[in-house]
Amino acid sequence: MFTPRPIGHVRSPYAETSQVPKGLGAKHDAEGELEILPEFEAGLTDIEGFSHLYVIWAFDRSEGFQLMGRPPSDDRPHGVFATRSPRRPNPIALSVVELLGREGRRLRVRGVDMLDGTPILDIKPYLSSVPEKQLRRGWLAEAEARKEKG
Amino acid sequence: MFTPRPIGHVRSPYAETSQVPKGLGAKHDAEGELEILPEFEAGLTDIEGFSHLYVIWAFDRSEGFQLMGRPPSDDRPHGVFATRSPRRPNPIALSVVELLGREGRRLRVRGVDMLDGTPILDIKPYLSSVPEKQLRRGWLAEAEARKEKG
Repeated sequence: MFTPRPIGHVRSPYAETSQVPKGLGAKHDAEGELEILPEFEAGLTDIEGFSHLYVIWAFDRSEGFQLMGRPPSDDRPHGVFATRSPRRPNPIALSVVELLGREGRRLRVRGVDMLDGTPILDIKPYLSSVPEKQLRRGWLAEAEARKEKG
Repeated sequence: MFTPRPIGHVRSPYAETSQVPKGLGAKHDAEGELEILPEFEAGLTDIEGFSHLYVIWAFDRSEGFQLMGRPPSDDRPHGVFATRSPRRPNPIALSVVELLGREGRRLRVRGVDMLDGTPILDIKPYLSSVPEKQLRRGWLAEAEARKEKG
């Protein structure tokens, strides 16, 4: 395989996990920065043209993994690969952020749900989306329906 | 950081990079399997409820990285973080696949663009999408427009 290395770090308003909005209806509209290391700045060329980016990052403050767990959005346990739990066999996270602007090696973005100082592993352009009609959202849709019913 | 380990492997019709559809208008509708290792099978619990999955995998047959490169979809070079080039500082790939069915630790999926035997690092439910109206697709939209003009 390969040895992961940070290409940069997240500047986020969140210092602790408890501050990150979680659970059903949680909004991720916090602004922050993706600060890329100087040696990788050239890799950002032409990124300004994209409105949204995938950010792949490391859950660097998570330890070990749990194959079944109860996510904040439900009162029932689910398999780790059916959730976004940080306690995964490979502690890799994925976020979609909106690119607000670029200043050199700093990308200003909206939608950060990472902690301040989080190592960034990769950035990719967000290109396509699955039509809403074709999308099924499994246990999460069920948990939302139960919540609405009250 | 962490040491990446495979949670399973892709079974794909593609044995070589040259067989994977690439470039503008490339369709990814090939079917394949995500074969999860027995020790991680419990992590798949409830995954059947989701129509689409993110698959995070390793470009295990790619070497080194290149900060600027010419993607198959354009005749101009772009920064690696504005493309899906396999030659990245961290050789991590991301695909969205449609989940067709599950048999134990095997997920039958549509939309594989990986080579046969590719190590899978993570699977996550695909939950939301960016509304089409809000999406800008940078150099790729420009390359498509140039192609259409002929």
